[in-house]
Formats: sequence, C-alpha cells, structure tokens
Amino acid sequence: MTRYARLAAILSQRIEQGLYPAGDRLPSVRALSQEHGVSISTVQQAYRQLEERQLVEARPKSGYFVRPRRAPAALPAVTAPVQRPVDISQWEQVLELIRSKPRAGLIQLGRGMPDIAEPTMKPLMKALRDAARHGDLRSLYYDSIQGVSALREQIARLLLDSGCRIDAEQLMITTGCQEALSAGLRAVCRPGDIVAVDSPCFHGTMQTLKGLGIRALEIPTDPLDGISLAALEMALEQWPVKAILLTPNCNNPLGYIMPEANKRRLLTLAQRHDAAIIEDDVYGDIAYQYPRPRTIKSFDEDGRVLLCSSFSKTLAPGLRVGWIAPGRYLERVLHMKYIGSGSTATQPQLAIADFIRHGHYLLHLRRMRARYQQNRDRMTDWIMKYFPAGTRVSQPRGGFMLWIELDEEFDTLRLNRYLEQQGVQIAVGSIFSASGKYRNCLRINYAAKLSAEIEQAVLRVGATVQQLMAADTLARSD
Amino acid sequence: MTRYARLAAILSQRIEQGLYPAGDRLPSVRALSQEHGVSISTVQQAYRQLEERQLVEARPKSGYFVRPRRAPAALPAVTAPVQRPVDISQWEQVLELIRSKPRAGLIQLGRGMPDIAEPTMKPLMKALRDAARHGDLRSLYYDSIQGVSALREQIARLLLDSGCRIDAEQLMITTGCQEALSAGLRAVCRPGDIVAVDSPCFHGTMQTLKGLGIRALEIPTDPLDGISLAALEMALEQWPVKAILLTPNCNNPLGYIMPEANKRRLLTLAQRHDAAIIEDDVYGDIAYQYPRPRTIKSFDEDGRVLLCSSFSKTLAPGLRVGWIAPGRYLERVLHMKYIGSGSTATQPQLAIADFIRHGHYLLHLRRMRARYQQNRDRMTDWIMKYFPAGTRVSQPRGGFMLWIELDEEFDTLRLNRYLEQQGVQIAVGSIFSASGKYRNCLRINYAAKLSAEIEQAVLRVGATVQQLMAADTLARSD
Repeated sequence: MTRYARLAAILSQRIEQGLYPAGDRLPSVRALSQEHGVSISTVQQAYRQLEERQLVEARPKSGYFVRPRRAPAALPAVTAPVQRPVDISQWEQVLELIRSKPRAGLIQLGRGMPDIAEPTMKPLMKALRDAARHGDLRSLYYDSIQGVSALREQIARLLLDSGCRIDAEQLMITTGCQEALSAGLRAVCRPGDIVAVDSPCFHGTMQTLKGLGIRALEIPTDPLDGISLAALEMALEQWPVKAILLTPNCNNPLGYIMPEANKRRLLTLAQRHDAAIIEDDVYGDIAYQYPRPRTIKSFDEDGRVLLCSSFSKTLAPGLRVGWIAPGRYLERVLHMKYIGSGSTATQPQLAIADFIRHGHYLLHLRRMRARYQQNRDRMTDWIMKYFPAGTRVSQPRGGFMLWIELDEEFDTLRLNRYLEQQGVQIAVGSIFSASGKYRNCLRINYAAKLSAEIEQAVLRVGATVQQLMAADTLARSD
Repeated sequence: MTRYARLAAILSQRIEQGLYPAGDRLPSVRALSQEHGVSISTVQQAYRQLEERQLVEARPKSGYFVRPRRAPAALPAVTAPVQRPVDISQWEQVLELIRSKPRAGLIQLGRGMPDIAEPTMKPLMKALRDAARHGDLRSLYYDSIQGVSALREQIARLLLDSGCRIDAEQLMITTGCQEALSAGLRAVCRPGDIVAVDSPCFHGTMQTLKGLGIRALEIPTDPLDGISLAALEMALEQWPVKAILLTPNCNNPLGYIMPEANKRRLLTLAQRHDAAIIEDDVYGDIAYQYPRPRTIKSFDEDGRVLLCSSFSKTLAPGLRVGWIAPGRYLERVLHMKYIGSGSTATQPQLAIADFIRHGHYLLHLRRMRARYQQNRDRMTDWIMKYFPAGTRVSQPRGGFMLWIELDEEFDTLRLNRYLEQQGVQIAVGSIFSASGKYRNCLRINYAAKLSAEIEQAVLRVGATVQQLMAADTLARSD
C-alpha cells in the first residue's frame, strides 16, 4: 500500500467511526503532514482519493470537510419472474426505444449511451482521422474475419485486468457487443432451446433470444448479489438448459457485481449440467472499484464460457467495435460472424488499437469511473427528492444506469406516454423481462453531465409519477 | 448524340464492316477533322471512346490503329446442379479463403476485392477524416437502427438509376451486403425451409443458408442469360420454395446480366408461387453498360423483393456499409438487424453520404466501369494464352470476376494446394455450389491494376493446370 493510500485508509476509518462527524472541517494538509510525517503532496493525494470516494469535499479556501452521509435508498426487491421457459414478447416497446434519435428538446434518459464528450476522448478522434490518412489504405481493406490483429493484441492485454489470460488468436472482433452475444447464442443454441437469464435482463439479449426462437428461463435476481444460485440450480435440474446468459459485472439494469464466490459456484453448476455460459461484460471496465472485478471467464477451465464485450459503453457506441472470447466455440462463432455481417469495419479497429496502445484508454476509464460514481450519487439524490416516498432504487457498483421500482400497481408504459409529451424519454421496465413483467419499474441513464436541464427532466418524471399515483388512489377510492 | 459520339459511331461501323481492317492505321486526327468538319478535340474524344471500347489502340507518335479482333473465348456450359434441396457443405474451403489476409508475396486472385487505389477514391479518405473532425461527435453516437438518414437519402437517389423509386424511410443501412442478405433471409425463412438459388452462387450466401439451417435448391444457370426460368418453374411446382435468392446483375461468379424480360418473368413466377425474392445487386453499379441495368426490384409491385447491396464492391469492403430495401418485410428485417449487430458504424456512413452528395461516387463509378472492362479483356487474353486449349471462360458484363471452366475431370482443390506454394491464391469452384460441384472450375479477380506480376501469377496458374492435366493423362494411359 502506498503512503497516501495508507493515510486515506486511516482518515476514512476515523470518518466511519464518527471521529470526524458529517459537515465538520478536517485537519489541514499541513497538520496531517506533521502528524503522520509525510509530505504535503502525499496528504493531498490522500484527500483526492477520499474526494473520489465521496467521503470528503473540498471547499475553496476553507479546506476539506466530511460529506453528509446519505441515507441509502431502499433497494428494489429480489425479483420473482415466471419460473418456466417462455417465448419473448415486448418487441414493439423495444422498437420504440431504439428508433428514437438524439434531437433537440428531447432528454434521452432511456438509452444505454455513455458520455462521449469528455476531453479524454479527444485522442480517439485524432486516431480515427489518422487511420484515414491519405495514402494509408488499410481502412478500406477487408481485414481477417477475426478482426485486426493489432486490436486483438491490445484487448488480450486489457483482459489480464479481469483475470483472463487469452491469446489474441482466441479473440474475435465483432460489430458491437450485440453481435458478440448474437453470434455466441447462435453458436451454442438452436431454435426451441432453453436459455437461463438473470432477470431483469438487457432487452437486446432478450430480443436476440426471440429472434432465434429460443425460450428464456428467467431466474430470480438479487439487486446486490445478482442471479439467485439456488433458483438457478433448481432450474438446471428441472429443465434442459443449453446456456446461462448473464451480466455478472455492473449488471444492466441492476448495477450489481456478483461476488467472486458466486461466480465460481455458477461455473461449477454449469459444468455439472453441461451448460455453456454467455457472459456479457460490456460494463465491466467501468466498475467503480479498482482493480476491476474478475469475470466468470477468468475461472473457466474447459472453454465453456463465451465472454462478450465491446467499447460501446467505455468509449462510444457509434464505433461498433466489440469482441468475443468464445472458448471452445471459436469456429462456430466464426461461421456465425461470417454469415451475419462479414468482417467488422476496419478503421475504428485501427483507431481503437492506437488509442489503447498509447495509454489513452486506461486514462479515460479512470476519469469515467470517478465521473459515473459521482453521477450515481447525485442522480440517486434527485430520485429520492423528486419521486414519491417508497420508491426503491438500485445501488449500482459500475456503469451508468439506475433501476427504479415503483408501487406494484404502477404502470410505466402509461407513464411513458405522458412523458413523451414533455420531451423526456425513459426505458420502461417491461422490456427487461421476457414476459412483460417489471411494468412498475423503469431504467434511467446518468452518464451525461448532470445539468440543471437533466435535474428538471428527473423532476418532471417524478412529478408525473406522483400525479398518476394520486389519480389512481382517487380512482380506487371512488 | 454529341458530335464526338456520332463520329465514334461512324468509325466503329467502318471497322465492323472491315473498311479499316485489323492492324491498319486509321486516318489522322487532322484528316478526320477536315473530312467531317469537326474540331480536333472532337476527333480526339471520339478516338478516346473507341479506345475505351477496345476497338482501336494509340501507338505513340504513330497514330491510331485498329485492334486485332479477339476470337471470343468459349463459354462455360449451362450448369447442371443437383435438382433437389440439399444441405450446404464446403465451409472449410470458404474458411480458408476468407481467413487469408493481404501479405507480401501473395497474389490474391481469389477474393472479391475491388481496386481501392484509384485517385477517384481520394475524396472518400478526406470525407472519412472530416467525419472525425474535432468537436463533431456524430461519429460516436448510435444513430437510428435504420441508419444515417443523410446516407439513406443519397441511396434513394442512386436507386433511381436502376429504375427503383424507394423512399429513404423504406431503406435500412446494414453492415455490408452480407448483413443485408443475412437479415433478409432470416426475415423470410425459418430453419428447414427451401430457397432456390442460381448456381453457381456466391459462397457467402450459401454459407448463410447453411448457418440458418435452410436447404438450397440449385437451379441450372446459363452463363449469358442467368438462371433457367424453365428449370425454376419446374422447381417451384415441385417444391415449397420460400424464396428465390439470386444475383441478376453482373452475377458473381458468372458475370451475366439477366435480360429484362427474364427479370419480369421471374417476378411473375414468384408471384404465382408466393415466393419472396432476395436480389443481390452488389455489383449492379459497375455494369459496363450505361445506364446501368434495372433490378427485379424495380418491377416489384407487392413488396416481395428484398433488394440487397453495398459499397463493398463499388468503393471498399473495409467500410462495411451496405443496405437493404426490404419491401413488405421491413419490420422483420429491422428486428433481425437489431439482434444481429445493432446499428452500423456511423462514421463510414457519414463519409459515404458526403462522397455521393458531392458527385464523387458517380465519377468513381465511371472510371471503374471503364477500367474493369479493359481488365476483363486483358485477363481473358491471358487466360486464353496461358491456360490449356479447351478452357472455357465467362464473358462478364460487369464486376471484376472471371469464371473459368476446365476439363470435367480436373480438380481445382488439388490445383489450389500446388498454387499455395507458389504464392498465388484462387477461389475454387466448389465453394460456389451447395453440394461441392464445380470442382473443375475456378474464379479469379481482375480488379487490381494488371501488372506484370499479375500476368506472371496467371501464367503460373495456367502452367500448373497444364502440368496437372499432363500428369493425369499419363496416369490414365498407364
């Protein structure tokens, strides 16, 4: 542990123990430097770390103060989906969401869009321009169907951070994570098969199951620990489950990180029942903890885990660059990728490889981790302030999505119709279920710079929820 | 008709009638200018046109000469594939072809790569750089799942040239033509269905059928007129054909353009048997004739034709920008596109839209049409010179592929193994059949600038064919 980390640990312990109460001024930098016999800059680094962790705040010309502890929001309940294989519905609502385009006067709180306006993205724009240099025709070629090898090598290096040792030759570049998931599913399953999913579950994945004629078996999921292993085990015993499809790190929409022990146990269950695991790690690199959490893939021994990810959430979705580490299914995934869309566009691959190689990617991640974590707390505060009492909110440990659970009777589809007229877009909960559950839930995005305009939008959502609830109460009492 | 075109017509008629025999010197520019009362530059333009049409050749300081008439090569036979639905094989050979990457010392005659080094491509590189301008974040966004509307509008305009009036809202951008074909097939068919295809047929399409568990019904095909309508009609009567999948314009690999009357009759047949038509028009814009040929889609009345194309052959494949006009299947194709790969990369779409809007695309097409036509004749000459007597060669009317048919007993898979050692790559005929037919055929690409190096490669292929044939004859006579 470095000196400043040690100092930060001491200070945070004192804050936790109440030695420095909320709102109090903390010892000055000079005083701490003398007390602990460390340099001024070490103390400053320690305070910066505590700031990032939201424990202290700097006030100009006054020093550092203990931040008021927020009462944590009530968590959503453990989910209770239908526990038998079902065909997937909800395409119309998904279509509505994905057809919406950025336009003036619309606040899009519904989509999975990261913040692309940070200055740490600038070198990427330059790399894109450089990849289209006059005279350099590489951007125009078909590259190998597996993807540009320079990029695969960089990804192989990044994967070490999640505990994975995967050779670049065992990786395939895909057109976004969506193609990774889609090709992975096609490689493992046939129409009519059953796939177990965490529930709620990303709508793109669910619609893929629908498109392939695969039935979903939704497994109850805890908002802090993820998929219920007890329920999964029962399901595996009862049904011929071909694959388990889940997002264990910075889950979309719930935001949890599965405990490492659960990841290991899940893998053992899959081995025992000979099911493949399709692991969506698309938000894994923007977990708020550092080092980032491990993947299930990192424990894989027999190649049954297909790890899927992309740069759509960490960099930008418009690049359409993802990847898959398909384990023993490499050749089948290659076939599915070939027939699905052929190679992936070359220029963005070249640009991203360059961006990572020069260290810009890790720098960008560091910034975004801190930014999103701050945004989560602010957005949670707004929800608690503007939404009715009793609203339950997830506590994401990574990513930039909040899952909000309202009264059981509440209908977010109806809410959405009212919000459209007010220029606010949310993601309704029902698209995260195979069978239209979670109608009383919604997902909102807190990636963008949290401006007064966004606060206004959240206020409008909260007020509309309140109004609809009041109207319902009135109707019921009639 | 312009003056120079009129003069060119007079001169070409005189050549045809033998007034100016092959090898003879033609009248000087000055003499023609006086004879016809036109300017020097008009005569020069007329001669340039005749040069492009390969009727005359300029010899430095000597003037223009009538080119020797080439005896046309013998055409490949009308194909006779198995006329029942079959499951598709040949994946291993396709894999070998698509895994090969450009590298020093390898002449790739096998792949479907256009010439990307022409100066008319330069504005596209600039447009790619411009699309990644500092401060312009559009390249990073998800755009609509249907694709960038500025590009769809340009494509709608281009489609008028093939007789299609299609609204931009009825178009979808895809990740290459491969995704258009794949999403189209998925929208129309289910596993176990039967699809009729022209035979030989593009290997990417066939592998898509394989991947989707669809059976192919290969229809005999004429090397000049395309798919046999009589055979198709019989097949439609005998089998429950869900869709007809074909490339009527500048067919890959045969190069023919289906006569317009046949296109209309095929549509009528499809209507009568309620089959969808999946029309691959990826080479249509580089037909040698101008204006370009019409599509079957241009006659479509009830939205049963799904027109698929891309900029991979007219511009560059590494851009991965294609499109589909899916008629009545729009929403299903949208679903398949969404689950297959999500949106298509934004930056290449913006760049291509810009390139077309400024007139660079049509300029580039004009240049490539002339270039590819010249290359076709030169490559055909080389084949006739270096391959054994009796070799049959297609007469492509667009694109940049030659289909070569050898003795019935000849095995191009074996040929390929020998050629690998010599740094030449070809496409073996069997990947163009669902059931491994056409082993005695090969396809070669004549897109690149036909250097002495490429002539050497063709010579090596021809010599190896000769040697293998001689060895076979010897073996048989033993």
